Amino acid sequence: MHNETLYHTFLELLKDQFTPEDEKNIIALVQKHHAADLAPVLDQLEMQQAARVLKYMEMPFQAEVFGYLEPSTQSNLVDELGVAHITRLIDVMDADDRVDFYNNLDEEHQQAILPGLAQAEREDIRKLSSYGEGTVGAIMTSDYAALAQNLRAGEALERLRQEAPDKETIYNAYVVDEHRQLMGVVSLKDLILAQPGTLVTDLMNSDVVSINAAEHQSEAARKIAKYDLLALPVINGNDKLAGIVTHDDAMDVAEAEATEDIHRMGGVSPSAPGLGSVNMLEASTWMMVQKRLPWLLVLVFMNIFSGAGIAHFEDTIEAVVALVFFLPLLIDSGGNAGSQSATLMIRALATGRAHLRDWFTLLSKEIGVAILLGVGMALAVSLIGVFRAGPEVAVVVAMTMVCTVLFGSLVGTALPFVLSRLKLDPATASAPLVTSIADIGGVLIYFSIATWVLRDIIAAAGAA
Amino acid sequence: MHNETLYHTFLELLKDQFTPEDEKNIIALVQKHHAADLAPVLDQLEMQQAARVLKYMEMPFQAEVFGYLEPSTQSNLVDELGVAHITRLIDVMDADDRVDFYNNLDEEHQQAILPGLAQAEREDIRKLSSYGEGTVGAIMTSDYAALAQNLRAGEALERLRQEAPDKETIYNAYVVDEHRQLMGVVSLKDLILAQPGTLVTDLMNSDVVSINAAEHQSEAARKIAKYDLLALPVINGNDKLAGIVTHDDAMDVAEAEATEDIHRMGGVSPSAPGLGSVNMLEASTWMMVQKRLPWLLVLVFMNIFSGAGIAHFEDTIEAVVALVFFLPLLIDSGGNAGSQSATLMIRALATGRAHLRDWFTLLSKEIGVAILLGVGMALAVSLIGVFRAGPEVAVVVAMTMVCTVLFGSLVGTALPFVLSRLKLDPATASAPLVTSIADIGGVLIYFSIATWVLRDIIAAAGAA
Repeated sequence: MHNETLYHTFLELLKDQFTPEDEKNIIALVQKHHAADLAPVLDQLEMQQAARVLKYMEMPFQAEVFGYLEPSTQSNLVDELGVAHITRLIDVMDADDRVDFYNNLDEEHQQAILPGLAQAEREDIRKLSSYGEGTVGAIMTSDYAALAQNLRAGEALERLRQEAPDKETIYNAYVVDEHRQLMGVVSLKDLILAQPGTLVTDLMNSDVVSINAAEHQSEAARKIAKYDLLALPVINGNDKLAGIVTHDDAMDVAEAEATEDIHRMGGVSPSAPGLGSVNMLEASTWMMVQKRLPWLLVLVFMNIFSGAGIAHFEDTIEAVVALVFFLPLLIDSGGNAGSQSATLMIRALATGRAHLRDWFTLLSKEIGVAILLGVGMALAVSLIGVFRAGPEVAVVVAMTMVCTVLFGSLVGTALPFVLSRLKLDPATASAPLVTSIADIGGVLIYFSIATWVLRDIIAAAGAA
Repeated sequence: MHNETLYHTFLELLKDQFTPEDEKNIIALVQKHHAADLAPVLDQLEMQQAARVLKYMEMPFQAEVFGYLEPSTQSNLVDELGVAHITRLIDVMDADDRVDFYNNLDEEHQQAILPGLAQAEREDIRKLSSYGEGTVGAIMTSDYAALAQNLRAGEALERLRQEAPDKETIYNAYVVDEHRQLMGVVSLKDLILAQPGTLVTDLMNSDVVSINAAEHQSEAARKIAKYDLLALPVINGNDKLAGIVTHDDAMDVAEAEATEDIHRMGGVSPSAPGLGSVNMLEASTWMMVQKRLPWLLVLVFMNIFSGAGIAHFEDTIEAVVALVFFLPLLIDSGGNAGSQSATLMIRALATGRAHLRDWFTLLSKEIGVAILLGVGMALAVSLIGVFRAGPEVAVVVAMTMVCTVLFGSLVGTALPFVLSRLKLDPATASAPLVTSIADIGGVLIYFSIATWVLRDIIAAAGAA
């Protein structure tokens, strides 16, 4: 396996028993790999070993690999590598990776590192780390290419050529006025194709899609996906260009957002420390319990209402025990249909394929769908009902099926909208929550219908 | 609202009552918008109107907007626009948008369009449409920039400059040998920074991350995300460069994959016609029923086993009716814990944060987590148990809680692995499926424990 090979190459390096010529070859071999492949193997080494392997790599590459390491490895390496080495690393790192690393350090290490940095970098870290978690500002980079509005294409190209090594991308350059307000965007492609004498303002597209630094990260990912952008310029409160979000960071955000939604839908709270970014293999048992127990307890207490509902109908159950056979089937069916509705709705809201204003249309449509589903399932169970418990119970079961499926589906459809409206995450309408609500409804519907349809049998049993 | 404004601008255009000067202004205004913003508004117009508005736009832009339209709108526009106009559009469209459009047409329209196309385009469509749905080949584009290995940086730049208008991206160019085998990748940035006389083979990175055209799309998206690529080169069966997948298409794939997984986890079958790409508002009632009913029926039949389990313990229930109060609570708790486990596991497998080989580690860890969860929940319910039904029933309920939560969690953890192993999608281990399996286990566990713990009470009731 690929990783195995790398692991053994690293162990080879650590042996320290080779000629300078061998050493050069091994390092060249290592550096032929992509930083994204090297980092996970370093994550698995002991910190002292990881530090030694890292130090063998040449400098810009070393910083790149460091940027791909798990946050916990990065923090642990600070002491192993020493503050002097770390400041050299930080110097070469991308602005956004740098601030992510800095934010993950404890205060003591932050204070140890700051004095060694150049004024500009200190300032940059201070600015970027001032944005709240989850905001666009927290993932943007300040390594973007900006052009003054009076430049011509030839001059602009020359400028980009000089700045290229320090920028995340030079394929999009942003034209700004003297107050650093964003005037337009020009692509490297346009600059190359243009006559050198053309003004960049004549080449630029002035209808720039941009985003405010205070907005939510997911919005940046959505815009980059929608407009097929390489990078999205970020504006701060004063309407000035503050940074860019690049397509690769947007993809990471989209993945993390999807994970968060999925966890929430499964009834796992995604609050910090986020499991989305933590390796399942690394998460401690206690961390997992903390993430799962609260929701489970909430659901336990909700289910007590189902129990109370059943207790209320004790006479009905004692008269016709066969009703209990169908209890899991009926309440589960409502919950299952509801989980489906909630899943569809949550995802449609998250991807922008449905909006809050569509709730009425979608709810009316859901009623039609749910009735058809309920009738289909009722036909299926009534056969079993007749066979197992006679025609009266079969009628009760079939009627209940239609009603519980309808009830569950409406809960599943409406709950995400209600949560959205209350500015809560619609994904909190998890399958377990919808199931629990559908259960309470299902119990009440089932035994109410049963008590009414079977009233003669129950009365006879009571008299006996 | 933004879209409202556009809608009214379109209606203005359709009135046809303006001077040529006005017309130019309106069109300029329309074309200031991003094609991704215009397309959804056109989707809402009647086909005849959409065709007229589209025709007002200038040609390369018109093709871009056409590429963003819903597949159904595209198909409907063929007749409105006429074959001659459509062939002109196709001529300008990106190769991958073109083939997507072509594949969506019925055979009759495909046959009508083909003769009007140039030989090269016909050949290109034929090649690209030969890849199966879901494969990398089906989303790649043939509009990539290739460079011969004997070129120098200056010549390569000149070549890219000439080809730029026809290529999806010129920011990455692929160096190929005389057999079109991929030798390396060189970025436009490197070419610009290099001395014009340098050979591209000296500039290129020869450790290219690439993918086979027959692999699954999601693998392409994963590679682009992992290595932060702008584009990923695609190799066909003969090891030749066949195309590229660009970062924006990868992002669309990742979103569609996440939607598909989420739907599957919610018990909605994501089979064609995919809801992932269909607007919820547009999906017909019947389409929704088809997507949801099959799974619900499967679950109904699974739940019959729960019913059969209960029937088996009829004597126990008749002796202690209070047991029924706790039935929904206990079986739901197992299902809820199982849904959590399945959700965590499915997502970890999908994002590559867990692998098939980790099953043993993750399962052993899950046992620890589940026991802690079960004990926590047992403590919560035993209080209610004592209060509502006395100490004996409370003991039964507490013991059952630990066992069902453990059972549900193990099912939720193991099922995604088993499905993966069987080459099935782990996301099929949906919350409803896990819940249903947990229910069957829960019923058997609950009444078995009850029958054993309460054996004296049951015997007394039987004698009475």
